[in-house]
Amino acid sequence: MKRILLTVAYDGTGYSGFQAQKSGVPTIERELNRAITELTGVPTEVSGASRTDAGVHALCNLAVFDTESRIPPEKFANALNVRLPEAICVQSAREVPPDFHPRFAHTVKTYDYVIYNARFPSPRRRRFTYYSYTPFDVARMQEAAQYLVGEHDFKSFCSVHTQALTTTREITAIEVWERPCEEERAAELVTQPAPQRGVSPREIVIRVSGTGFLYNMVRIIAGTLMEVGRGAIEPEEIREILKACDREKAGPTAPPEGLTLVHYAILA
Amino acid sequence: MKRILLTVAYDGTGYSGFQAQKSGVPTIERELNRAITELTGVPTEVSGASRTDAGVHALCNLAVFDTESRIPPEKFANALNVRLPEAICVQSAREVPPDFHPRFAHTVKTYDYVIYNARFPSPRRRRFTYYSYTPFDVARMQEAAQYLVGEHDFKSFCSVHTQALTTTREITAIEVWERPCEEERAAELVTQPAPQRGVSPREIVIRVSGTGFLYNMVRIIAGTLMEVGRGAIEPEEIREILKACDREKAGPTAPPEGLTLVHYAILA
Repeated sequence: MKRILLTVAYDGTGYSGFQAQKSGVPTIERELNRAITELTGVPTEVSGASRTDAGVHALCNLAVFDTESRIPPEKFANALNVRLPEAICVQSAREVPPDFHPRFAHTVKTYDYVIYNARFPSPRRRRFTYYSYTPFDVARMQEAAQYLVGEHDFKSFCSVHTQALTTTREITAIEVWERPCEEERAAELVTQPAPQRGVSPREIVIRVSGTGFLYNMVRIIAGTLMEVGRGAIEPEEIREILKACDREKAGPTAPPEGLTLVHYAILA
Repeated sequence: MKRILLTVAYDGTGYSGFQAQKSGVPTIERELNRAITELTGVPTEVSGASRTDAGVHALCNLAVFDTESRIPPEKFANALNVRLPEAICVQSAREVPPDFHPRFAHTVKTYDYVIYNARFPSPRRRRFTYYSYTPFDVARMQEAAQYLVGEHDFKSFCSVHTQALTTTREITAIEVWERPCEEERAAELVTQPAPQRGVSPREIVIRVSGTGFLYNMVRIIAGTLMEVGRGAIEPEEIREILKACDREKAGPTAPPEGLTLVHYAILA
């Protein structure tokens, strides 16, 4: 028996999240189970590291499965990719010790929440960004983000539907930055040579790293930082929102399409 | 009667190109005609600047239509976007003189052909890039590209199905460069800490600008430069391929998903 660790990238659009569900709706896990079972001829189930929500994407979610297959571990990536839909793609496969599970390893996970900020939505960005035409003040968002770094009770930033025993978590870093969308900007100027009211096309990235996250936590952080960016919440109010331990005090849960699990650091 | 000029961005995946077809298959033009007709209540047809092929994308294709509608010209963008599928999005609308047509104006069009070059395909890049795991030598592609700049008979770089009267065209610039895909690279290293054989995730961009293009010309240029990049054609052979005026001498037509019309410069 071998334990295989997969890195899996996916476009979560149209999937009901990572985790397999009894109702048989399409999920990432269900597709992986089907592909491995088809390949090895033995009913097999993966165990994933992060149960991303419906519509959320990943560049590197992790999953393990046990198999007696004689396929060399590193060959699983290509062999599974030909059996997976284009929206799901194994990025690497290797053998790990039989007791290794990424969910129980010391890890730091990094999520990007990306806002496409422009006068009009962009067909080529729509799947992996949240579109908004609101002008955001990125410096205010950066200031607000720093109050969230460290170990805190994040009850205000957690869905009320959580089943977590404790709502204390550690955020190791948050960065907020913008990157101009040069090509969209140039395209806009073709027929609008006059200086524009409103924002010039850009992406605003909110990158959150931490050792563990509560249900909807990154999306509530993103939704709250957007409220700060548009002026509805002051940066220093974040401290009070944390203290309140009340979901009602934080901003809305940002839509799933802007969120991507981009990195896993396995520390031990 | 007013003439309105639209800038239109689209994800061409799943569309049979820009131009409306008798068979009623989904095209960008058909969707625009339907949306304008719905909005104004009067059957209306647009006339597009570039008839992009099936599966090809645009950040800024141009189209004009005539209308007696009292809707202020700049309001057409939002009003049409709510009636268009998410894959098609008007980026601007303005009134132009009644005799203006972008197809007959002096313009320089710019296309990007983008190759996603990595060990495995990426779900988040698949719609707007052509995937290849082949290692490409970008310096060779840059050298080869320079032989194509200027006014030449591009018969070797034109589909044999062309109906063009002359196959002489002017390419004003070609640039080839690579940009590393940092996030995919970092994701790859999570479970593959050893130095990798094969390429590190990157995009290779072939940007071609010209005053006019033949049928499939940019895709045949891209396919030929990829042959140069993988070592099958020498950069200086491009001169002989041009001289031959024979489609058989150039490389294959690169797949449509890598191609995007990114810019229009209206010169007069």
